[in-house]
Amino acid sequence: MDSLKYISRDDIDNMDRVPRLKLINALSGFKSANLIGTINTTGVENLAIFSSVFHLGSDPPLLGCILRPKLVPRHTYDNLKATGWYTINHINEEIYQQAHQTSGKYREDISEFNMTDLTSFYSGECEAPYVKEANIRIGLKFLEEHLVQTNNTYMIVGSIEQLMLPADCFEDDGFFDIEKAGTLTISGLDAYHKTKRIDKLDYVRVDKSVKREE
Amino acid sequence: MDSLKYISRDDIDNMDRVPRLKLINALSGFKSANLIGTINTTGVENLAIFSSVFHLGSDPPLLGCILRPKLVPRHTYDNLKATGWYTINHINEEIYQQAHQTSGKYREDISEFNMTDLTSFYSGECEAPYVKEANIRIGLKFLEEHLVQTNNTYMIVGSIEQLMLPADCFEDDGFFDIEKAGTLTISGLDAYHKTKRIDKLDYVRVDKSVKREE
Repeated sequence: MDSLKYISRDDIDNMDRVPRLKLINALSGFKSANLIGTINTTGVENLAIFSSVFHLGSDPPLLGCILRPKLVPRHTYDNLKATGWYTINHINEEIYQQAHQTSGKYREDISEFNMTDLTSFYSGECEAPYVKEANIRIGLKFLEEHLVQTNNTYMIVGSIEQLMLPADCFEDDGFFDIEKAGTLTISGLDAYHKTKRIDKLDYVRVDKSVKREE
Repeated sequence: MDSLKYISRDDIDNMDRVPRLKLINALSGFKSANLIGTINTTGVENLAIFSSVFHLGSDPPLLGCILRPKLVPRHTYDNLKATGWYTINHINEEIYQQAHQTSGKYREDISEFNMTDLTSFYSGECEAPYVKEANIRIGLKFLEEHLVQTNNTYMIVGSIEQLMLPADCFEDDGFFDIEKAGTLTISGLDAYHKTKRIDKLDYVRVDKSVKREE
Protein backbone atom coordinates (compact mmCIF):
# COMPACT_ATOMS: atom_id res chain seq x y z
CA MET A 1 0.00 0.00 0.00
CA ASP A 2 1.26 3.47 -0.86
CA SER A 3 2.23 5.52 2.12
CA LEU A 4 -0.14 8.33 3.04
CA LYS A 5 0.99 11.84 3.82
CA TYR A 6 -1.04 13.77 6.42
CA ILE A 7 -0.74 17.54 6.09
CA SER A 8 -2.36 19.88 8.61
CA ARG A 9 -3.34 23.52 8.14
CA ASP A 10 -0.35 24.45 10.30
CA ASP A 11 1.92 22.43 7.97
CA ILE A 12 0.50 24.34 4.96
CA ASP A 13 0.91 27.72 6.65
CA ASN A 14 4.54 26.86 7.45
CA MET A 15 5.44 25.86 3.87
CA ASP A 16 7.63 28.09 1.71
CA ARG A 17 5.70 30.10 -0.87
CA VAL A 18 6.58 28.19 -4.06
CA PRO A 19 6.03 24.62 -2.75
CA ARG A 20 2.75 25.79 -1.23
CA LEU A 21 1.68 27.37 -4.55
CA LYS A 22 2.48 24.12 -6.38
CA LEU A 23 0.66 21.88 -3.89
CA ILE A 24 -2.47 23.97 -3.30
CA ASN A 25 -2.90 24.63 -7.02
CA ALA A 26 -3.09 20.87 -7.61
CA LEU A 27 -5.83 20.16 -5.07
CA SER A 28 -8.97 21.26 -6.92
CA GLY A 29 -8.37 18.53 -9.54
CA PHE A 30 -7.98 19.03 -13.28
CA LYS A 31 -8.64 22.56 -14.53
CA SER A 32 -10.01 24.10 -17.68
CA ALA A 33 -7.43 25.60 -20.07
CA ASN A 34 -8.59 28.81 -21.69
CA LEU A 35 -7.37 32.06 -23.19
CA ILE A 36 -9.44 35.14 -22.37
CA GLY A 37 -9.37 37.86 -25.02
CA THR A 38 -10.24 41.49 -24.31
CA ILE A 39 -9.58 44.94 -25.76
CA ASN A 40 -9.23 48.26 -23.96
CA THR A 41 -10.99 51.49 -24.88
CA THR A 42 -7.97 52.74 -26.86
CA GLY A 43 -7.84 49.57 -28.98
CA VAL A 44 -4.99 47.62 -27.33
CA GLU A 45 -5.79 43.89 -27.29
CA ASN A 46 -5.07 41.66 -24.31
CA LEU A 47 -4.86 37.88 -24.12
CA ALA A 48 -4.34 35.93 -20.91
CA ILE A 49 -4.35 32.27 -19.88
CA PHE A 50 -6.90 31.21 -17.23
CA SER A 51 -7.34 27.83 -15.55
CA SER A 52 -10.32 29.02 -13.50
CA VAL A 53 -13.18 29.13 -16.01
CA PHE A 54 -16.14 27.05 -14.76
CA HIS A 55 -19.74 26.21 -15.64
CA LEU A 56 -22.39 28.21 -13.79
CA GLY A 57 -25.64 27.36 -15.54
CA SER A 58 -27.16 26.52 -18.89
CA ASP A 59 -30.41 28.55 -18.85
CA PRO A 60 -29.40 31.32 -19.10
CA PRO A 61 -25.99 30.13 -20.39
CA LEU A 62 -23.39 31.36 -17.86
CA LEU A 63 -19.68 30.88 -17.24
CA GLY A 64 -17.70 31.98 -14.22
CA CYS A 65 -14.01 32.72 -13.79
CA ILE A 66 -11.68 33.92 -11.04
CA LEU A 67 -9.62 37.12 -11.38
CA ARG A 68 -7.30 38.85 -8.93
CA PRO A 69 -7.47 42.55 -9.81
CA LYS A 70 -6.91 43.71 -6.24
CA LEU A 71 -3.49 42.10 -5.93
CA VAL A 72 -1.81 43.37 -9.10
CA PRO A 73 -3.10 45.34 -12.11
CA ARG A 74 -4.99 42.97 -14.35
CA HIS A 75 -5.76 44.13 -17.85
CA THR A 76 -8.38 41.43 -18.43
CA TYR A 77 -10.47 42.74 -15.53
CA ASP A 78 -10.13 46.40 -16.54
CA ASN A 79 -10.97 45.67 -20.18
CA LEU A 80 -14.01 43.47 -19.65
CA LYS A 81 -15.40 45.99 -17.17
CA ALA A 82 -14.76 48.87 -19.60
CA THR A 83 -16.18 47.27 -22.76
CA GLY A 84 -18.58 44.71 -21.28
CA TRP A 85 -17.21 41.97 -23.56
CA TYR A 86 -14.66 39.12 -23.38
CA THR A 87 -13.94 35.92 -25.25
CA ILE A 88 -13.05 32.46 -23.92
CA ASN A 89 -10.97 30.31 -26.28
CA HIS A 90 -10.07 26.66 -25.52
CA ILE A 91 -6.35 25.86 -25.50
CA ASN A 92 -5.31 22.92 -27.70
CA GLU A 93 -2.05 21.03 -28.23
CA GLU A 94 -0.93 23.27 -31.10
CA ILE A 95 -1.04 26.49 -29.05
CA TYR A 96 -0.45 25.57 -25.38
CA GLN A 97 3.11 26.92 -25.34
CA GLN A 98 2.01 30.25 -26.78
CA ALA A 99 -0.95 30.24 -24.39
CA HIS A 100 1.36 29.68 -21.42
CA GLN A 101 3.55 32.58 -22.56
CA THR A 102 0.61 35.00 -22.06
CA SER A 103 1.05 34.53 -18.29
CA GLY A 104 4.08 36.85 -18.45
CA LYS A 105 3.57 40.30 -16.96
CA TYR A 106 3.51 42.43 -20.11
CA ARG A 107 2.91 46.19 -20.01
CA GLU A 108 -0.59 47.46 -20.76
CA ASP A 109 0.40 48.83 -24.18
CA ILE A 110 1.75 45.45 -25.33
CA SER A 111 -0.63 42.94 -26.94
CA GLU A 112 -0.01 39.31 -25.98
CA PHE A 113 -1.32 38.43 -29.47
CA ASN A 114 1.78 40.07 -30.91
CA MET A 115 4.13 38.59 -28.32
CA THR A 116 2.92 35.03 -28.94
CA ASP A 117 2.04 35.10 -32.65
CA LEU A 118 -1.53 34.11 -31.93
CA THR A 119 -4.04 35.73 -34.29
CA SER A 120 -6.94 37.92 -33.19
CA PHE A 121 -10.16 38.26 -35.14
CA TYR A 122 -13.56 39.84 -34.59
CA SER A 123 -17.05 38.50 -35.19
CA GLY A 124 -18.81 41.83 -35.58
CA GLU A 125 -21.18 41.31 -32.65
CA CYS A 126 -18.64 40.61 -29.89
CA GLU A 127 -16.35 43.59 -29.25
CA ALA A 128 -13.54 41.46 -27.77
CA PRO A 129 -10.99 39.60 -29.93
CA TYR A 130 -11.23 35.85 -30.55
CA VAL A 131 -8.22 33.57 -31.01
CA LYS A 132 -8.12 32.22 -34.57
CA GLU A 133 -5.98 29.19 -33.61
CA ALA A 134 -8.50 28.00 -30.98
CA ASN A 135 -11.11 25.47 -32.07
CA ILE A 136 -13.77 26.37 -29.50
CA ARG A 137 -14.51 30.09 -29.14
CA ILE A 138 -17.08 31.73 -26.89
CA GLY A 139 -18.14 35.39 -26.82
CA LEU A 140 -19.44 36.65 -23.48
CA LYS A 141 -20.99 39.73 -21.90
CA PHE A 142 -19.97 40.70 -18.36
CA LEU A 143 -22.89 40.33 -15.89
CA GLU A 144 -21.80 40.17 -12.24
CA GLU A 145 -18.74 40.32 -10.01
CA HIS A 146 -18.43 38.99 -6.47
CA LEU A 147 -15.55 39.80 -4.14
CA VAL A 148 -14.18 36.88 -2.11
CA GLN A 149 -13.34 38.75 1.08
CA THR A 150 -10.86 36.21 2.44
CA ASN A 151 -8.29 36.87 -0.30
CA ASN A 152 -9.55 39.83 -2.39
CA THR A 153 -10.30 37.68 -5.42
CA TYR A 154 -13.16 38.32 -7.84
CA MET A 155 -15.57 35.80 -9.31
CA ILE A 156 -16.69 37.17 -12.68
CA VAL A 157 -20.00 35.99 -14.16
CA GLY A 158 -20.67 36.31 -17.88
CA SER A 159 -23.43 35.28 -20.26
CA ILE A 160 -22.64 33.32 -23.41
CA GLU A 161 -23.71 35.40 -26.41
CA GLN A 162 -21.98 33.70 -29.34
CA LEU A 163 -20.28 30.39 -30.13
CA MET A 164 -17.94 29.27 -32.90
CA LEU A 165 -17.52 25.51 -32.72
CA PRO A 166 -16.22 22.67 -34.93
CA ALA A 167 -19.35 21.11 -36.43
CA ASP A 168 -17.88 17.59 -36.37
CA CYS A 169 -17.60 17.55 -32.56
CA PHE A 170 -21.35 17.14 -32.05
CA GLU A 171 -22.37 13.52 -31.46
CA ASP A 172 -25.79 12.17 -32.41
CA ASP A 173 -27.10 12.32 -28.83
CA GLY A 174 -26.20 16.00 -28.47
CA PHE A 175 -22.92 15.37 -26.63
CA PHE A 176 -20.32 17.96 -27.59
CA ASP A 177 -16.86 16.36 -27.72
CA ILE A 178 -14.21 18.83 -26.52
CA GLU A 179 -11.60 16.05 -26.53
CA LYS A 180 -12.11 15.65 -30.28
CA ALA A 181 -11.61 19.43 -30.60
CA GLY A 182 -8.18 18.95 -29.01
CA THR A 183 -8.94 20.84 -25.80
CA LEU A 184 -6.28 20.32 -23.11
CA THR A 185 -6.56 20.34 -19.33
CA ILE A 186 -4.21 21.86 -16.73
CA SER A 187 -3.03 20.55 -13.38
CA GLY A 188 -1.23 22.54 -10.73
CA LEU A 189 0.37 25.75 -11.94
CA ASP A 190 1.91 24.68 -15.18
CA ALA A 191 1.26 21.09 -16.30
CA TYR A 192 -0.66 20.43 -19.53
CA HIS A 193 -2.50 17.16 -20.21
CA LYS A 194 -4.27 15.50 -23.10
CA THR A 195 -7.33 13.40 -22.29
CA LYS A 196 -8.72 9.97 -23.20
CA ARG A 197 -12.44 9.45 -22.67
CA ILE A 198 -13.12 6.25 -20.73
CA ASP A 199 -16.89 6.41 -20.37
CA LYS A 200 -20.10 8.40 -20.74
CA LEU A 201 -22.72 7.55 -18.14
CA ASP A 202 -26.48 7.85 -18.10
CA TYR A 203 -28.57 10.27 -16.09
CA VAL A 204 -29.03 8.58 -12.69
CA ARG A 205 -32.47 7.48 -11.53
CA VAL A 206 -32.48 6.41 -7.90
CA ASP A 207 -34.44 3.19 -8.42
CA LYS A 208 -31.93 1.89 -10.98
CA SER A 209 -28.41 0.60 -10.65
CA VAL A 210 -25.56 2.17 -12.62
CA LYS A 211 -26.17 1.89 -16.38
CA ARG A 212 -23.46 2.20 -19.01
CA GLU A 213 -24.03 4.10 -22.23
CA GLU A 214 -21.04 2.71 -24.06
CA MET B 1 -10.75 22.42 -43.07
CA ASP B 2 -13.44 21.40 -40.59
CA SER B 3 -16.67 23.25 -40.99
CA LEU B 4 -17.43 25.83 -38.32
CA LYS B 5 -20.77 26.11 -36.58
CA TYR B 6 -21.89 29.60 -35.57
CA ILE B 7 -24.41 29.63 -32.70
CA SER B 8 -26.01 32.88 -31.50
CA ARG B 9 -27.58 33.59 -28.14
CA ASP B 10 -30.98 33.35 -29.81
CA ASP B 11 -30.07 29.91 -31.14
CA ILE B 12 -29.12 28.81 -27.59
CA ASP B 13 -32.31 30.22 -26.08
CA ASN B 14 -34.35 28.34 -28.70
CA MET B 15 -32.71 24.95 -28.05
CA ASP B 16 -34.56 22.17 -26.25
CA ARG B 17 -33.54 21.76 -22.60
CA VAL B 18 -31.46 18.57 -22.84
CA PRO B 19 -29.38 19.45 -25.92
CA ARG B 20 -28.76 22.88 -24.37
CA LEU B 21 -27.68 21.29 -21.07
CA LYS B 22 -25.26 19.02 -22.94
CA LEU B 23 -23.76 21.78 -25.06
CA ILE B 24 -23.43 24.53 -22.44
CA ASN B 25 -21.98 22.10 -19.87
CA ALA B 26 -19.15 21.33 -22.32
CA LEU B 27 -18.09 24.92 -22.93
CA SER B 28 -16.04 25.73 -19.82
CA GLY B 29 -13.52 23.04 -20.80
CA PHE B 30 -12.45 20.06 -18.72
CA LYS B 31 -13.81 19.98 -15.18
CA SER B 32 -12.58 18.71 -11.85
CA ALA B 33 -14.13 15.42 -10.65
CA ASN B 34 -14.79 15.35 -6.93
CA LEU B 35 -17.03 13.84 -4.28
CA ILE B 36 -18.10 16.18 -1.49
CA GLY B 37 -18.78 14.47 1.84
CA THR B 38 -20.91 16.01 4.59
CA ILE B 39 -22.95 14.91 7.62
CA ASN B 40 -26.12 16.43 9.04
CA THR B 41 -26.74 17.29 12.68
CA THR B 42 -28.57 13.99 13.29
CA GLY B 43 -25.65 11.93 11.93
CA VAL B 44 -26.85 11.09 8.41
CA GLU B 45 -23.95 11.17 5.95
CA ASN B 46 -24.22 12.67 2.47
CA LEU B 47 -21.97 12.19 -0.55
CA ALA B 48 -22.41 14.03 -3.85
CA ILE B 49 -20.47 14.36 -7.09
CA PHE B 50 -19.36 17.86 -8.11
CA SER B 51 -17.61 19.01 -11.28
CA SER B 52 -17.42 22.64 -10.13
CA VAL B 53 -14.62 22.65 -7.54
CA PHE B 54 -11.98 25.25 -8.43
CA HIS B 55 -8.81 26.84 -7.05
CA LEU B 56 -9.29 30.20 -5.33
CA GLY B 57 -5.96 30.90 -3.67
CA SER B 58 -3.01 29.29 -1.96
CA ASP B 59 -2.33 31.69 0.95
CA PRO B 60 -4.65 31.18 2.71
CA PRO B 61 -5.43 27.85 0.97
CA LEU B 62 -8.94 28.19 -0.50
CA LEU B 63 -11.20 26.17 -2.78
CA GLY B 64 -14.47 27.26 -4.33
CA CYS B 65 -17.43 25.27 -5.62
CA ILE B 66 -20.86 25.95 -7.10
CA LEU B 67 -24.07 24.74 -5.43
CA ARG B 68 -27.70 25.25 -6.39
CA PRO B 69 -29.64 25.15 -3.13
CA LYS B 70 -32.30 27.59 -4.31
CA LEU B 71 -33.48 25.39 -7.15
CA VAL B 72 -33.98 22.08 -5.34
CA PRO B 73 -33.15 20.95 -1.79
CA ARG B 74 -29.46 20.19 -1.62
CA HIS B 75 -28.23 18.24 1.36
CA THR B 76 -24.60 19.18 0.78
CA TYR B 77 -25.42 22.86 1.21
CA ASP B 78 -27.57 22.34 4.32
CA ASN B 79 -24.99 20.08 5.97
CA LEU B 80 -21.91 22.20 5.36
CA LYS B 81 -23.77 25.25 6.61
CA ALA B 82 -24.99 23.37 9.72
CA THR B 83 -21.69 21.74 10.72
CA GLY B 84 -19.18 24.12 9.10
CA TRP B 85 -17.22 21.19 7.60
CA TYR B 86 -17.03 19.32 4.28
CA THR B 87 -14.57 17.06 2.50
CA ILE B 88 -13.44 17.05 -1.14
CA ASN B 89 -12.31 13.66 -2.48
CA HIS B 90 -10.82 13.19 -5.97
CA ILE B 91 -12.60 10.68 -8.20
CA ASN B 92 -10.37 8.00 -9.75
CA GLU B 93 -10.95 5.26 -12.31
CA GLU B 94 -11.84 2.64 -9.69
CA ILE B 95 -14.77 4.65 -8.27
CA TYR B 96 -16.14 6.87 -11.04
CA GLN B 97 -19.25 4.75 -11.61
CA GLN B 98 -20.10 4.82 -7.91
CA ALA B 99 -19.29 8.53 -7.82
CA HIS B 100 -21.65 9.18 -10.74
CA GLN B 101 -24.40 7.25 -8.96
CA THR B 102 -24.40 9.84 -6.12
CA SER B 103 -25.98 12.31 -8.56
CA GLY B 104 -29.29 10.51 -8.05
CA LYS B 105 -31.90 12.38 -6.00
CA TYR B 106 -31.88 10.32 -2.82
CA ARG B 107 -34.01 11.20 0.22
CA GLU B 108 -32.34 13.09 3.06
CA ASP B 109 -32.38 10.05 5.39
CA ILE B 110 -30.49 7.91 2.84
CA SER B 111 -26.68 7.96 2.80
CA GLU B 112 -25.10 7.81 -0.64
CA PHE B 113 -22.20 5.97 1.00
CA ASN B 114 -24.57 3.05 1.61
CA MET B 115 -26.19 3.29 -1.83
CA THR B 116 -22.85 3.18 -3.65
CA ASP B 117 -20.72 0.98 -1.35
CA LEU B 118 -18.19 3.75 -0.91
CA THR B 119 -16.66 3.81 2.59
CA SER B 120 -16.77 6.79 4.93
CA PHE B 121 -14.15 7.47 7.58
CA TYR B 122 -13.32 10.30 9.96
CA SER B 123 -10.02 11.97 10.77
CA GLY B 124 -10.94 13.21 14.21
CA GLU B 125 -10.40 16.89 13.40
CA CYS B 126 -12.71 17.21 10.39
CA GLU B 127 -16.36 16.57 11.29
CA ALA B 128 -17.35 15.58 7.74
CA PRO B 129 -16.78 12.07 6.31
CA TYR B 130 -13.91 11.32 3.94
CA VAL B 131 -14.08 8.72 1.14
CA LYS B 132 -11.72 5.83 1.87
CA GLU B 133 -11.48 4.79 -1.79
CA ALA B 134 -10.29 8.26 -2.91
CA ASN B 135 -6.54 8.83 -3.13
CA ILE B 136 -6.60 12.59 -2.57
CA ARG B 137 -8.72 13.81 0.36
CA ILE B 138 -9.18 17.37 1.56
CA GLY B 139 -10.93 18.55 4.74
CA LEU B 140 -12.41 22.06 4.55
CA LYS B 141 -14.15 24.62 6.74
CA PHE B 142 -16.95 26.73 5.25
CA LEU B 143 -15.97 30.40 5.01
CA GLU B 144 -18.13 32.42 2.58
CA GLU B 145 -21.10 32.11 0.25
CA HIS B 146 -21.96 34.39 -2.66
CA LEU B 147 -25.28 34.35 -4.48
CA VAL B 148 -25.14 34.62 -8.29
CA GLN B 149 -28.25 36.69 -8.85
CA THR B 150 -28.72 35.78 -12.50
CA ASN B 151 -29.56 32.13 -11.75
CA ASN B 152 -29.80 31.74 -7.94
CA THR B 153 -26.60 29.70 -7.70
CA TYR B 154 -24.20 29.85 -4.77
CA MET B 155 -20.43 30.02 -4.86
CA ILE B 156 -19.16 28.40 -1.66
CA VAL B 157 -15.68 29.30 -0.37
CA GLY B 158 -13.88 26.99 2.04
CA SER B 159 -10.43 26.90 3.64
CA ILE B 160 -8.28 23.79 3.42
CA GLU B 161 -7.67 22.49 6.96
CA GLN B 162 -6.36 18.96 6.40
CA LEU B 163 -4.91 16.85 3.57
CA MET B 164 -4.43 13.12 3.11
CA LEU B 165 -2.32 12.54 0.01
CA PRO B 166 -0.31 9.70 -1.56
CA ALA B 167 3.30 10.42 -0.60
CA ASP B 168 4.68 9.08 -3.91
CA CYS B 169 2.87 11.74 -5.97
CA PHE B 170 5.23 14.53 -4.89
CA GLU B 171 7.97 15.20 -7.47
CA ASP B 172 11.39 16.55 -6.51
CA ASP B 173 10.55 20.10 -7.64
CA GLY B 174 7.43 20.23 -5.44
CA PHE B 175 5.00 19.40 -8.26
CA PHE B 176 2.12 17.28 -6.96
CA ASP B 177 1.08 14.73 -9.61
CA ILE B 178 -2.70 14.21 -9.52
CA GLU B 179 -2.50 12.17 -12.74
CA LYS B 180 -0.29 9.63 -10.93
CA ALA B 181 -2.93 9.53 -8.16
CA GLY B 182 -5.44 8.41 -10.82
CA THR B 183 -7.60 11.55 -10.68
CA LEU B 184 -10.07 11.76 -13.57
CA THR B 185 -11.55 14.77 -15.34
CA ILE B 186 -15.14 15.36 -16.51
CA SER B 187 -16.46 16.93 -19.70
CA GLY B 188 -20.03 17.97 -20.31
CA LEU B 189 -22.60 16.42 -18.01
CA ASP B 190 -21.45 12.86 -17.85
CA ALA B 191 -18.22 12.01 -19.70
CA TYR B 192 -15.19 10.78 -17.73
CA HIS B 193 -11.62 11.08 -19.02
CA LYS B 194 -8.18 9.86 -18.03
CA THR B 195 -5.26 12.21 -18.69
CA LYS B 196 -1.77 12.02 -20.18
CA ARG B 197 0.65 14.78 -19.24
CA ILE B 198 2.33 16.29 -22.31
CA ASP B 199 4.40 19.04 -20.72
CA LYS B 200 5.24 21.10 -17.65
CA LEU B 201 6.28 24.64 -18.46
CA ASP B 202 8.43 27.16 -16.63
CA TYR B 203 7.28 30.31 -14.94
CA VAL B 204 7.18 32.96 -17.68
CA ARG B 205 9.54 35.94 -17.60
CA VAL B 206 8.64 38.52 -20.21
CA ASP B 207 12.19 39.01 -21.51
CA LYS B 208 12.59 35.31 -22.30
CA SER B 209 11.12 33.10 -24.98
CA VAL B 210 9.18 29.96 -24.08
CA LYS B 211 11.39 27.50 -22.18
CA ARG B 212 10.64 23.83 -21.83
CA GLU B 213 11.18 21.98 -18.55
CA GLU B 214 10.96 18.49 -19.99
